[in-house]
Amino acid sequence: MKRRQLLSQSAIAAGTAASLVACSKATTSNNQATTGGELPNIRWRMVTSWPKSLDTLYGGAQDFCEAIAAMTGGKFRITPYAAGEIVPGLEVLDAVQNGTIECGHTASYYYIGKNPALGFACVMPFGLTAQQQNAWLYAGGGLEMMQKVYSDFNIINFPAGNTGAQMAGWFKKPVESLADLRGLKMRIPGLGGQVMAQLGVNVQVIPGGELFLALDRGTIDAAEWVGPYDDEKLGLNKAAKYYYYPGWWEPGPTLDLLVNQSQWEKLPLEYQTIFQEAARSANLLMLSRYETFNSMALKTLLDGGTILKSFSPEILTVAQETSQALLAEFASKDAQFKEIYQQWQTFRTQMFGWNAINELSYTQFVEKAP
Amino acid sequence: MKRRQLLSQSAIAAGTAASLVACSKATTSNNQATTGGELPNIRWRMVTSWPKSLDTLYGGAQDFCEAIAAMTGGKFRITPYAAGEIVPGLEVLDAVQNGTIECGHTASYYYIGKNPALGFACVMPFGLTAQQQNAWLYAGGGLEMMQKVYSDFNIINFPAGNTGAQMAGWFKKPVESLADLRGLKMRIPGLGGQVMAQLGVNVQVIPGGELFLALDRGTIDAAEWVGPYDDEKLGLNKAAKYYYYPGWWEPGPTLDLLVNQSQWEKLPLEYQTIFQEAARSANLLMLSRYETFNSMALKTLLDGGTILKSFSPEILTVAQETSQALLAEFASKDAQFKEIYQQWQTFRTQMFGWNAINELSYTQFVEKAP
Repeated sequence: MKRRQLLSQSAIAAGTAASLVACSKATTSNNQATTGGELPNIRWRMVTSWPKSLDTLYGGAQDFCEAIAAMTGGKFRITPYAAGEIVPGLEVLDAVQNGTIECGHTASYYYIGKNPALGFACVMPFGLTAQQQNAWLYAGGGLEMMQKVYSDFNIINFPAGNTGAQMAGWFKKPVESLADLRGLKMRIPGLGGQVMAQLGVNVQVIPGGELFLALDRGTIDAAEWVGPYDDEKLGLNKAAKYYYYPGWWEPGPTLDLLVNQSQWEKLPLEYQTIFQEAARSANLLMLSRYETFNSMALKTLLDGGTILKSFSPEILTVAQETSQALLAEFASKDAQFKEIYQQWQTFRTQMFGWNAINELSYTQFVEKAP
Repeated sequence: MKRRQLLSQSAIAAGTAASLVACSKATTSNNQATTGGELPNIRWRMVTSWPKSLDTLYGGAQDFCEAIAAMTGGKFRITPYAAGEIVPGLEVLDAVQNGTIECGHTASYYYIGKNPALGFACVMPFGLTAQQQNAWLYAGGGLEMMQKVYSDFNIINFPAGNTGAQMAGWFKKPVESLADLRGLKMRIPGLGGQVMAQLGVNVQVIPGGELFLALDRGTIDAAEWVGPYDDEKLGLNKAAKYYYYPGWWEPGPTLDLLVNQSQWEKLPLEYQTIFQEAARSANLLMLSRYETFNSMALKTLLDGGTILKSFSPEILTVAQETSQALLAEFASKDAQFKEIYQQWQTFRTQMFGWNAINELSYTQFVEKAP
């Protein structure tokens, strides 16, 4: 881990691309010494935040565990558990921190109440897309900073999944202007919910399993979940007609594997590297599946009568300003948040500038909006 | 490998998202039996198409080999070689096919002369972005189809890198219209070169190491290479002022690990899974580095006087039509190409439709063109 920690988190702000090459290479060169001896049998449990019905999320955790077993000839086995089987879905961090469980698969932004900086490990409103988030984590100094934040919880984290850019959710009536948002009862958690609250939305917290009924009966006027594939499973398209985009509060959320630091240190170097490589592999695999399944499910939804609608520029502009003010407020109150925020902002500006040229110029030409 | 081959390549065309889940999960569940016994010491060599100076490409291959060694306690060691050290950079496929070498790291589109369908493993003009290409390969049935193509060469391939969307290259004078392209001497290889030739460009084939001199002396009027980070290393910004985008012939090229099929079958299941997981990890890591380093190098180039220019809608429109006609022509001549092309086109249309909604709508709003 020492070589990784050589990476100064100010590399991006200060540095040249050449210096970053050196830094970035260090993050995967954690393979200096190798034992070559007989490897131990290790059994871990993994708690997750996911119900078994979500084959994208829970299935991703399952596949990771299977890969670990296959790579070690069954010597290192991790058994995954669905949300609620051992601990509730939103208490994964706690269970890993206190050592009840060796590791967990979850979304870091569930825990921003403990430290708002954990949000950067997952996604921020008007933040990075999946590809940009991975660039920041793996080559832009992001993962080193997030591992520093997690070390305060006796945890080391590894990105291991991404949903891709999410939808903004289901609305029973069209929302054209800021005025239409005022008083709207919407299920939207996290920082996105905090921004929406400032725009006058009556923010509701409702578990996924209860979303359909709440929306169908009119207890709420709108609800966001993930995207076409997962949303269709919940039946949300049968409870509301208008499907809004973009989901500016979740342009590319990372899911993390959290490992108890003391348990991590007991692993032989072979298993540590296997764990890290399988986590990065799982990260890419989950995103690839989400993109593919969502592209197919969107077609099904449209064939079934769902009406796509974009948020108006008015709403997007004010939402972006409100989001930036919210992050600046967190930064003003916490030095660690501020340090990460500034480095992240520099990265974001630079990456947005590059991607506007190399990728947006292309996708604008080839992708046709409906 | 049998479970992988269960995936019908018509799944996308015919299927539902649910059927694809089952298919996609099979691609990573190659871990049924495990030996648990003592693993053999294996030494392989890996030839590559890259000079050592390209730390993105050659460095990616190196890091892959280091990861394999670390995961196996040094029992499975692969030594990478730069282009020309054992075989020339564009003969990697041949060396792996005939068993001279166990494996190689290269770009599949170098070998479209052997079979044009190999181009789909890498990139096609006006094809998929990096994220879309990964979705197609890992969850859309693409990798299974490409492994079928490669099996005719006694090779199994695994995606293990991506450069991200490339730039269209360096031009000594602005190119505003189709008329400006006629007679222009440009270094551009592959299918992009074939399209450009149909637009009247005088296509040149020049190795990377000679590009600067050729462009600087005016032997050629324009040259494309990769993107800001690699291009700056070649000094192309000192030989031409106008830097064009988008690089529509390479929106997200995959680099592949090619393994001799007979050597692959001799590997224990543990090593096979380790190899596959490390390849997917390397795929994501290389893309993350390219994006980060390019974003920083672009700033350096602009500070140094480089002028960014977009191809005109006129040029892009005709180039896209010409590209599609070229692919249709290949399809009319070869049944295997046609089968892959049709499946790929269905995937492409569906994914473009989805990404226009969930991601383009977002990046259009947040990313600012200069």
